Amino acid sequence: MKLTVVGGGSTYTPELIDGFARLRDTLPIEELVLVDPAAERLELVGGLARRIFARQGHGGRIVTTSDLDAGVEGADAVLLQLRVGGQAARQQDETWPLECGCIGQETTGAGGLAKALRTVPVVLDIAERVRRANPNAWIIDFTNPVGIVTRALLQAGHKAVGLCNVAIGFQRKFANLLGVTPSEIHLDHLGLNHLTWETAVRLGGPEGENVLPKLLGEHGDTIAADLKLPPALLDRLGGVVPSYYLRYYYAHDEVVRELGTKPSRAAEVAAMEKQLLEMYGDPALDEKPELLAKRGGAYYSEAAVDLAAALLGGGGNPYQVVNTYNGGTLPFLPDDAVIEVQAAVGAHGPVPMPLPDVDPLFAGLVANVTAYEELALEAALRGGRDRVFRALLAHPLVGQYEYADALTDRLIAHNREHLAWA
Amino acid sequence: MKLTVVGGGSTYTPELIDGFARLRDTLPIEELVLVDPAAERLELVGGLARRIFARQGHGGRIVTTSDLDAGVEGADAVLLQLRVGGQAARQQDETWPLECGCIGQETTGAGGLAKALRTVPVVLDIAERVRRANPNAWIIDFTNPVGIVTRALLQAGHKAVGLCNVAIGFQRKFANLLGVTPSEIHLDHLGLNHLTWETAVRLGGPEGENVLPKLLGEHGDTIAADLKLPPALLDRLGGVVPSYYLRYYYAHDEVVRELGTKPSRAAEVAAMEKQLLEMYGDPALDEKPELLAKRGGAYYSEAAVDLAAALLGGGGNPYQVVNTYNGGTLPFLPDDAVIEVQAAVGAHGPVPMPLPDVDPLFAGLVANVTAYEELALEAALRGGRDRVFRALLAHPLVGQYEYADALTDRLIAHNREHLAWA
Amino acid sequence: MKLTVVGGGSTYTPELIDGFARLRDTLPIEELVLVDPAAERLELVGGLARRIFARQGHGGRIVTTSDLDAGVEGADAVLLQLRVGGQAARQQDETWPLECGCIGQETTGAGGLAKALRTVPVVLDIAERVRRANPNAWIIDFTNPVGIVTRALLQAGHKAVGLCNVAIGFQRKFANLLGVTPSEIHLDHLGLNHLTWETAVRLGGPEGENVLPKLLGEHGDTIAADLKLPPALLDRLGGVVPSYYLRYYYAHDEVVRELGTKPSRAAEVAAMEKQLLEMYGDPALDEKPELLAKRGGAYYSEAAVDLAAALLGGGGNPYQVVNTYNGGTLPFLPDDAVIEVQAAVGAHGPVPMPLPDVDPLFAGLVANVTAYEELALEAALRGGRDRVFRALLAHPLVGQYEYADALTDRLIAHNREHLAWA
Amino acid sequence: MKLTVVGGGSTYTPELIDGFARLRDTLPIEELVLVDPAAERLELVGGLARRIFARQGHGGRIVTTSDLDAGVEGADAVLLQLRVGGQAARQQDETWPLECGCIGQETTGAGGLAKALRTVPVVLDIAERVRRANPNAWIIDFTNPVGIVTRALLQAGHKAVGLCNVAIGFQRKFANLLGVTPSEIHLDHLGLNHLTWETAVRLGGPEGENVLPKLLGEHGDTIAADLKLPPALLDRLGGVVPSYYLRYYYAHDEVVRELGTKPSRAAEVAAMEKQLLEMYGDPALDEKPELLAKRGGAYYSEAAVDLAAALLGGGGNPYQVVNTYNGGTLPFLPDDAVIEVQAAVGAHGPVPMPLPDVDPLFAGLVANVTAYEELALEAALRGGRDRVFRALLAHPLVGQYEYADALTDRLIAHNREHLAWA
Repeated sequence: MKLTVVGGGSTYTPELIDGFARLRDTLPIEELVLVDPAAERLELVGGLARRIFARQGHGGRIVTTSDLDAGVEGADAVLLQLRVGGQAARQQDETWPLECGCIGQETTGAGGLAKALRTVPVVLDIAERVRRANPNAWIIDFTNPVGIVTRALLQAGHKAVGLCNVAIGFQRKFANLLGVTPSEIHLDHLGLNHLTWETAVRLGGPEGENVLPKLLGEHGDTIAADLKLPPALLDRLGGVVPSYYLRYYYAHDEVVRELGTKPSRAAEVAAMEKQLLEMYGDPALDEKPELLAKRGGAYYSEAAVDLAAALLGGGGNPYQVVNTYNGGTLPFLPDDAVIEVQAAVGAHGPVPMPLPDVDPLFAGLVANVTAYEELALEAALRGGRDRVFRALLAHPLVGQYEYADALTDRLIAHNREHLAWA
Repeated sequence: MKLTVVGGGSTYTPELIDGFARLRDTLPIEELVLVDPAAERLELVGGLARRIFARQGHGGRIVTTSDLDAGVEGADAVLLQLRVGGQAARQQDETWPLECGCIGQETTGAGGLAKALRTVPVVLDIAERVRRANPNAWIIDFTNPVGIVTRALLQAGHKAVGLCNVAIGFQRKFANLLGVTPSEIHLDHLGLNHLTWETAVRLGGPEGENVLPKLLGEHGDTIAADLKLPPALLDRLGGVVPSYYLRYYYAHDEVVRELGTKPSRAAEVAAMEKQLLEMYGDPALDEKPELLAKRGGAYYSEAAVDLAAALLGGGGNPYQVVNTYNGGTLPFLPDDAVIEVQAAVGAHGPVPMPLPDVDPLFAGLVANVTAYEELALEAALRGGRDRVFRALLAHPLVGQYEYADALTDRLIAHNREHLAWA
Repeated sequence: MKLTVVGGGSTYTPELIDGFARLRDTLPIEELVLVDPAAERLELVGGLARRIFARQGHGGRIVTTSDLDAGVEGADAVLLQLRVGGQAARQQDETWPLECGCIGQETTGAGGLAKALRTVPVVLDIAERVRRANPNAWIIDFTNPVGIVTRALLQAGHKAVGLCNVAIGFQRKFANLLGVTPSEIHLDHLGLNHLTWETAVRLGGPEGENVLPKLLGEHGDTIAADLKLPPALLDRLGGVVPSYYLRYYYAHDEVVRELGTKPSRAAEVAAMEKQLLEMYGDPALDEKPELLAKRGGAYYSEAAVDLAAALLGGGGNPYQVVNTYNGGTLPFLPDDAVIEVQAAVGAHGPVPMPLPDVDPLFAGLVANVTAYEELALEAALRGGRDRVFRALLAHPLVGQYEYADALTDRLIAHNREHLAWA
Repeated sequence: MKLTVVGGGSTYTPELIDGFARLRDTLPIEELVLVDPAAERLELVGGLARRIFARQGHGGRIVTTSDLDAGVEGADAVLLQLRVGGQAARQQDETWPLECGCIGQETTGAGGLAKALRTVPVVLDIAERVRRANPNAWIIDFTNPVGIVTRALLQAGHKAVGLCNVAIGFQRKFANLLGVTPSEIHLDHLGLNHLTWETAVRLGGPEGENVLPKLLGEHGDTIAADLKLPPALLDRLGGVVPSYYLRYYYAHDEVVRELGTKPSRAAEVAAMEKQLLEMYGDPALDEKPELLAKRGGAYYSEAAVDLAAALLGGGGNPYQVVNTYNGGTLPFLPDDAVIEVQAAVGAHGPVPMPLPDVDPLFAGLVANVTAYEELALEAALRGGRDRVFRALLAHPLVGQYEYADALTDRLIAHNREHLAWA
């Protein structure tokens, strides 16, 4: 089995490697290719990756290359974890929307649209090259905004699945609170990537008993505190758990005020990356450093291993939360919308599990954001100022023409080098 | 033919009477009953109504009564035009949301929810009494919020149609700009009451040529200026004309600022009503005074005559914009949502005309507001603080829990006397 | 010695009575007159007042009357604690400014201006009648806004001193934290009523050692938490303690958001007053109920006793924080500004103690608010829409013409019955 | 007579040269030195300067140099017109404050503080070198923020006067509206640089008849429109004309919204500068191009000539609006505050003309901003995060600790290379 990671030079990669090493029984990788154009950084990361495999006695071979076509040749699955424009672009995404009183965030709102516009053409080009090299390879997309990117891949006919760590994070947290093993927890997880609610927490299987009422009764305060939302809100939502990203909606103005009254995260993240790369260069280091845990992305490697194993016909838990075509699962959305739900995953790909009726309180917002995502993808594929404006006007967190106009100007000004049409 | 107007003591009624008089060939009313609990005002209005009929040589009889059951007895159609709580409640609806930085408006946002909560139980009670008196009578609802009220009536099994004057206003305006007669204009009008776009303007019939591009090319500036929106926005929306109420969405913060930096309209409206009633008491007055035109509601009488005529099997134009069940017309909404579109209206009721695909830019917002309306109706029917909160949280112009909370408290505090459960 | 309390029917009066009883050695009252036009309430309060005196063995006579001229006849000092328009007006003051995005508060900002406009003419009329009855009587004003009201009194040539409980509150709190008796604490307290900073806390006398650095070092967190301000802010202000009212400035937008996302206090306060009056009617009650402590105004009675004793030539601590003419104490303000500082008080009245140089960080704001107070007083004395507008434009928490305009309209509309010129 | 212009390579310089050429009778320059470290740009500008002198028959010599010490040697007056950090820094100043909901502007608010912090140390160093080279030379400062920079210069004992073109602009405009020559107009101009009001417009001399009421009566609408303020506001201010910069105060939120909903001016200004420099390189160009008029700074050259002539003992109008020590002119400010008023200027320097009492509506704000300027200068001279925070907290357009904190972080992050202590 051969896996390729595009964007393998990310400082995040050791987390993934650690997961591959620990879970080698589930996913017996023979060759792992890390592809990245940043040769120097790739060598630092690749070196540590090899030392982690070695220390843990993993026999797989780790190859590093800046040649994408060579790197994907013969791969059974290709993982995409890239960041077009790097941390500098992220910093921009988080900053200029604030000038217009809008949240600055890398997946939600105007910043997320900027990221989509930069990313979709690059990912589609990579996917095309993967298909040419190996039409049967699965593409697993971690690259944000996962919903829009996955829709772009599926619309272009690729064998792609989108993956996010929000669901696996809740699974681990709930398992911990309930004192069970994570694999016993099945989530009624519904919505779009970064716009989801856990409406049931089932024990033992997708039809298992719903213990969410009990969980909220006993641990509602803890769960709400983690989300920085008041516990009463979870009750009023009907006894469900919204994802952390819902805070950008439910407490929008508070978040804008927080972001506008805090120093920006740029220096912080840049400093951490610099420190990590210095550590990786130490030949004595042969495990992921603790600092890496602060960088976000917890449990991504577990989710990736599970998903790759299931797609490549290995065993393991077939029920996984993924991004895939709706196909009637959420009846209020078009069939070709990409949703994030629990699916039964096999070599054929993911098949969403049926869900009970969705509360209008969630359905209305999901429908609205789906319309935004459709327009965002159109802007990413076809370009043009008006398409950017229309996507922003459609976004429930923008929605006003003056802001949409000003954000459009800023988005284009700050991303001109990444936008072929601008 | 017998018609009953519930809320017939409104200062607006002379407008309706004038229309009934002018259009008596289309709608040959034999008896018109004005029902209103405000006896004194009813007499002033009723007197003027009789003088208008007399002056125009209309032979119909006008009856005034405060007894609803007597008034609806034997009616072929019952028109609802009431305002629970009167102008004082409206004034409240327009004021307290501003304390939370939200727009104060009588149909949109938190104020509109307050109005729905006050109105739905009253209207359902009236409708029940109409049904008991005459199960075949049509109920024509002008009472705002028309979408929610109509949904309440239809859900309870009433023979009801909702009517608004936005579409007929555009029809008249466009006819005027194009130099044709209004009846030649057919609108692709779509969305929900007070959340609509004209996506085509057809000449000659529902399948006629779309002259909207030409109309916008020649008169876009005029049309946009009336809506207080920039002409470029109409282009970017795809060459469509949004209703005036979309400004509450597309320019939300600007409107909040306007409302918060202007004196409230209460004194103004109250003064106008007082002045009108004084005029009505003048036995020499036998036509609607000019001042009435400033009160809003232009062309309502024409729309009402056309609709009543069509429902009661009279001839006239069968194509009318009404509020009725979706039934698949807008495929992205539930069948039992109430939408506002052009329909073929006959004695069987309205049948929506098919529409082309809807731009996601409109569909997303419509789906979101439909979800709100479902929750608003639930709150109106079943009461309870949490249901009010949920409806407000679902509203795209509220959406944040802190505001939803504060608005809920204020809504209840200001409407306690009208809310059985509070 | 005879004292008269104008507004003696306030639910707050038992607090004052309790103080008079406890501190009878300092202020040996022979006759106490409670004057109030609300006869019924006055009887409830007066009854309890007599029972408190009786229980504590105070031999003074308590008289209740609604006749102001009779009540002030022969009084050595007259205490003013009235609320023109009652709690209903306060509720308005706290509400309508929020419609314009401004804080609603009864002494600060637009609400405070409304209160000044209602109160100044009433207080001046009372003072005139006091002077006629007894030109040597001292007027002690607790009535808010104390700064503007005191300036009005002094400008009209009355023997008046303004009193607030902010300083005595800090004195008690600091004494408690330091483990000393309150009388040992002398404050360098400076600024205007409700716009003050404690810049030194001295032990033993007005020239005593400044222990504020030590106090902040040990208890800064506690002190800041009480003020709902971050401890670091106290350091950055230069190691001083701002009054609670500075939060309306230093955290203005946060406070507006709090006020707009909380239910208004009206119902709460009204409910408490109702409950207190019920208690007062109980003939078995002969002490101030605990609930009264929640109504605000802690230590007012102690401050009043000390001030009256000093003014009437009794002994006691001559150093008290009062509102009086500046006269060069704060050199950056006009001599006839009314400031709030520590003064040496005797039968001749208060003489401000000298103060070190004032940090520009405080002086700039104090100068700005002094200019507002001058314009506010002009509006209160001479009336007129433009004068109201000018005062609001001058207020640092308003400052913008659109808000000043909208607030002016609302202030007048909500206070018409109290404004002779409107 | 020898004049030196520090920052002589500015694209603005040809405007100054044009003025020197036209007004050579008033100011007979024999040698003009343009000093600038940007050698290439200086040559372009210097070339055009020489051609303008030549075309207009001015016999003065124009020298260009990047050596400051050489350039100021023997100068009778040194004009400072520099921009530390260039247009890029200005672009920053105009942008990051918006992230915190504060105006982005290069002299007012947080952006103005950033400019002060960058500029004061550089200007003081230049002034010191001027003094060493020629202790009798006058320093004329155009460099913004002129008020703070002039105060820095005067405090350090330099022979300095601050100059701004706001007053001369009003003089020209009023002269035009009144149909008189500018020199007949004398202004009661008062306040601080960029925070001024014209409270009288006098004809013929500093004691001449005040025609401002007449001027506002006839041309109030035009004057208000230029300021983007409503004409009624000018009346309510008492019939005075505020400077354009007062709009940042009187319409603060509207301006923030404008700035946040417009593309930033960076590209625009940069493009204009590029275009101008291309023009300057054309050897056929021998006059200032029309485009230069759009760059701002109208009449600066006339003001500079008048001021230099008066300071150097030439004749001309001695009455000029300048920035100099208060010295009791505005009695509510410290003597060592720097104010902007009409002064009698001679070889001894400027002596402010007496002014009538100042309306508290202006005095309050002026006092507040003066306190800010004192703290801003302290921060510029002594550095440190806390001093920056204190200046921002003192600024009436900031005033809140959360914003002051966030702005401090951003100010430092964006200006680190210009702040020795950061």
